[in-house]
Amino acid sequence: MNYYNKLERHAKKLSRLGHLNAICGWDQAAIMPNGGAQARSEAMAELAVISHELATADYLEDWFTKAETEDLTPEQRISLLALKRQWTMQNILPADLVEQQSLTGSQCEHAWRSQRKENDWEGFKANLKPVVELARKEASIRAQATGLSRYDALLDIYEPGMTSAVLDGIFADVKSWLPQLIQQVEAKQTSDAVLPLSAPFAIEQQQALSLEAMKLLGFDFEHGRLDISTHPFCGGVPTDVRITTRYDESDFTSALMGVIHETGHARYEQGLPKQWRDLPVGEARSMGIHESQSLFCEMQLSRSSSFSRLLAPIIQQAFNSKDSSLSVENLYLMNTRVKPGFIRVDADEVTYPAHVILRYEIERDLIEGNIEVDDIPIIWDQKMTQYLGLSTLGNFKDGCMQDIHWTDGSFGYFPSYTLGAMYAAQFMAAMKKVVDVEAAITSGDLSPIFAWLETNIWSKGCTLSTDELVKQATGDTLNPRFFKEHLMERYNQ
Amino acid sequence: MNYYNKLERHAKKLSRLGHLNAICGWDQAAIMPNGGAQARSEAMAELAVISHELATADYLEDWFTKAETEDLTPEQRISLLALKRQWTMQNILPADLVEQQSLTGSQCEHAWRSQRKENDWEGFKANLKPVVELARKEASIRAQATGLSRYDALLDIYEPGMTSAVLDGIFADVKSWLPQLIQQVEAKQTSDAVLPLSAPFAIEQQQALSLEAMKLLGFDFEHGRLDISTHPFCGGVPTDVRITTRYDESDFTSALMGVIHETGHARYEQGLPKQWRDLPVGEARSMGIHESQSLFCEMQLSRSSSFSRLLAPIIQQAFNSKDSSLSVENLYLMNTRVKPGFIRVDADEVTYPAHVILRYEIERDLIEGNIEVDDIPIIWDQKMTQYLGLSTLGNFKDGCMQDIHWTDGSFGYFPSYTLGAMYAAQFMAAMKKVVDVEAAITSGDLSPIFAWLETNIWSKGCTLSTDELVKQATGDTLNPRFFKEHLMERYNQ
Ligand SMILES: [Zn+2]
Ligand SMILES: [Zn+2]
Repeated sequence: MNYYNKLERHAKKLSRLGHLNAICGWDQAAIMPNGGAQARSEAMAELAVISHELATADYLEDWFTKAETEDLTPEQRISLLALKRQWTMQNILPADLVEQQSLTGSQCEHAWRSQRKENDWEGFKANLKPVVELARKEASIRAQATGLSRYDALLDIYEPGMTSAVLDGIFADVKSWLPQLIQQVEAKQTSDAVLPLSAPFAIEQQQALSLEAMKLLGFDFEHGRLDISTHPFCGGVPTDVRITTRYDESDFTSALMGVIHETGHARYEQGLPKQWRDLPVGEARSMGIHESQSLFCEMQLSRSSSFSRLLAPIIQQAFNSKDSSLSVENLYLMNTRVKPGFIRVDADEVTYPAHVILRYEIERDLIEGNIEVDDIPIIWDQKMTQYLGLSTLGNFKDGCMQDIHWTDGSFGYFPSYTLGAMYAAQFMAAMKKVVDVEAAITSGDLSPIFAWLETNIWSKGCTLSTDELVKQATGDTLNPRFFKEHLMERYNQ
Repeated sequence: MNYYNKLERHAKKLSRLGHLNAICGWDQAAIMPNGGAQARSEAMAELAVISHELATADYLEDWFTKAETEDLTPEQRISLLALKRQWTMQNILPADLVEQQSLTGSQCEHAWRSQRKENDWEGFKANLKPVVELARKEASIRAQATGLSRYDALLDIYEPGMTSAVLDGIFADVKSWLPQLIQQVEAKQTSDAVLPLSAPFAIEQQQALSLEAMKLLGFDFEHGRLDISTHPFCGGVPTDVRITTRYDESDFTSALMGVIHETGHARYEQGLPKQWRDLPVGEARSMGIHESQSLFCEMQLSRSSSFSRLLAPIIQQAFNSKDSSLSVENLYLMNTRVKPGFIRVDADEVTYPAHVILRYEIERDLIEGNIEVDDIPIIWDQKMTQYLGLSTLGNFKDGCMQDIHWTDGSFGYFPSYTLGAMYAAQFMAAMKKVVDVEAAITSGDLSPIFAWLETNIWSKGCTLSTDELVKQATGDTLNPRFFKEHLMERYNQ
């Protein structure tokens, strides 16, 4: 067996341990009784230790050196690059830094859960400072190893190849038209009379509706499930994707849209290339591309007017109701309602980028050392006022304390959300050149739409760089004009 | 850290990997979509390899030698014995034999699933022969290491300390009165008019009833769940016990009795000593003692007339029915119906021992080399005729091909079922000296019953030998007269 094959076998072993972690993690979040928590954490920690030992084994450096001189197929060479990136990422940080980060992050996150409710910025700040210090250390180490700037070195974890120089350009463009667009849409929508929903909506009926929507979107139930958890997510493994939701009896749209979103993530996972299963080159391309698939389903498809026509009768049947709030027109009004608000996760697709740009600008400056934790609330308030016309002065819990990301040190993640929205718009524009999307939606058979995604995105796994993937799929690298055109067309005509 | 502590830490690590295996195994059996099977098997096989490497690590022999000379508390010394037994059991067989057994066993079991349906003894025989050959090899190796006879060395895996000499005595006693008792009970019951159930019974209602029964029996839902699987079992870990059942719309009693049975297993697991968690000394004593807890719930408690009085109104409410087939009297008649049949798993508690004794006698002679696989059908028929008055000539599928145990080489397991029934009867007899069992059942508060089991059985884990456990709990080692008296009292008065 040559060294490339040894590396493959080693990576598959790691991936299979990851499988156990994914299923036990899903179980923990979705169905484990409370009393099982302590033993489960201990068991999963044991698995993490074993995986870490495997991932950082001494012999790997030698294997990589030798594999690089071997006679490999072009595909194997691409796979080797992905293997090496994974190995580098797992070995770049000293063990004691990782341990410190894990401890400090858990502490900060744990305390945040109550501090947020109490609007306790002073308490939170004390925990966030050491988290930021450690993230800066991590960024320095990664910057030195990659030649990237400190923030870019963190961004690279989630969006390989993306830089703040590119983001700055893209976001500057968005900032030049977004605040005005939001005002125009708000003004335009004041005359829309949105009928309120006639709650309650039985959980069983919502569940049946969710399953219907998943079927419509081609979720493969031979390779996945839908369950309930407090924080909806898409977990499991590509052969067994576990998506979760939570049901709110007063408003079925939150669960429905959540399920549609997670189904987008799930189809990407289910559609990853089988020939590269359990290898890094067979994984999803980036967090931004992953989000593009969920937002393609949720934003590009589900909130379109043609999709409202498709879904309205299904919704009416699910709740056995012909209430006028469930009409095509009213569903579309609800699905496209724009309203600046404090909370990112509740934001519509028009105001969402403002939330992301604000966070990006703060975390970039924080990691690069241009601002300090103490400065966050005042900058947050300034930018919220500037982008969305809302002040968060003194309102920390609906301001800079609302997200979990920073509490455990995940700096560099936020841009993925808006990159995802932009990629989704660009994919839709490219798709429409070869697929009659409107006709597919009207017919109720969405398979031509997903066939395009499968061919151009899912089946590529990690074999292409993000730029190359997007270029081959759409003829162009990331271009924010498609996102702008999408918003203009849907909201400002 | 001394060597005993090193061994403890090592065992806990193994136990935590066992936790992941238990949860992923439960998931596989209960809720995994079909398409996830291949990847799940691969992931679990990887875990098995890692666990095996840990369990058979070179350094352990040295650690045991050193730990044995250390200054330990009496409790630690008992724990060390249990650790050593576990280690010996995991290291006694050469790796290539284990691998051959695993392959041959899976092949035989897999083919058996269709061969049984087709009554294909010739086909099955060809696969069973190598399984028996390997089991004999295993038995020889274990016999040499332990000084036991070959069959006893296998029996010892499931029932440490039990021997065929003891079993022969006990079973000879049973054979002296059982065939006659069966005939008497059958004659007596001919005059009983058992009303048939008014099916169907909705699965949702059966599920609610199952949960009610589990509550009544004190199942701790903070540390466990009830779900559905094709083959009901009790899995998971002590802090998170997963029991499963399957529902038959035409007859609610099969699921109900199954759930009560598994709840008995579950309470034992939930009640194991917390101070010895994740260590061999904190595990269940033996398969027979485990079965005694399930049969205590199912046979001693649930099929008693006072329990029928307690359960009847709960059943009537669950199905919202006052049908006379759900009366106390009819439920009791159904729960105590005796009828010789071909199938062990369908047998009542009176005829069950006959099924076990027959299997015990055949597997003992098979492993000791006194008979061959070719001889099984004719002996099976002779013994079925002798013990239960039923011939299985030519009827292999309802005869010697009905059980899964031998297909994968589990020889020595069958006696546990009847040992369990006997221990259960002996525990009940002892308990009744200090607990007013009838009053507890009548009141609906069964906690005094379970407090006795917790104190005398569950909390002991593996700290005592089976003989010592039973002696401390009942004043006597295993004595089959309690089982006989139980059957006589319930069925022949
Ligand atoms: Zn998402
Ligand atoms: Zn059992």
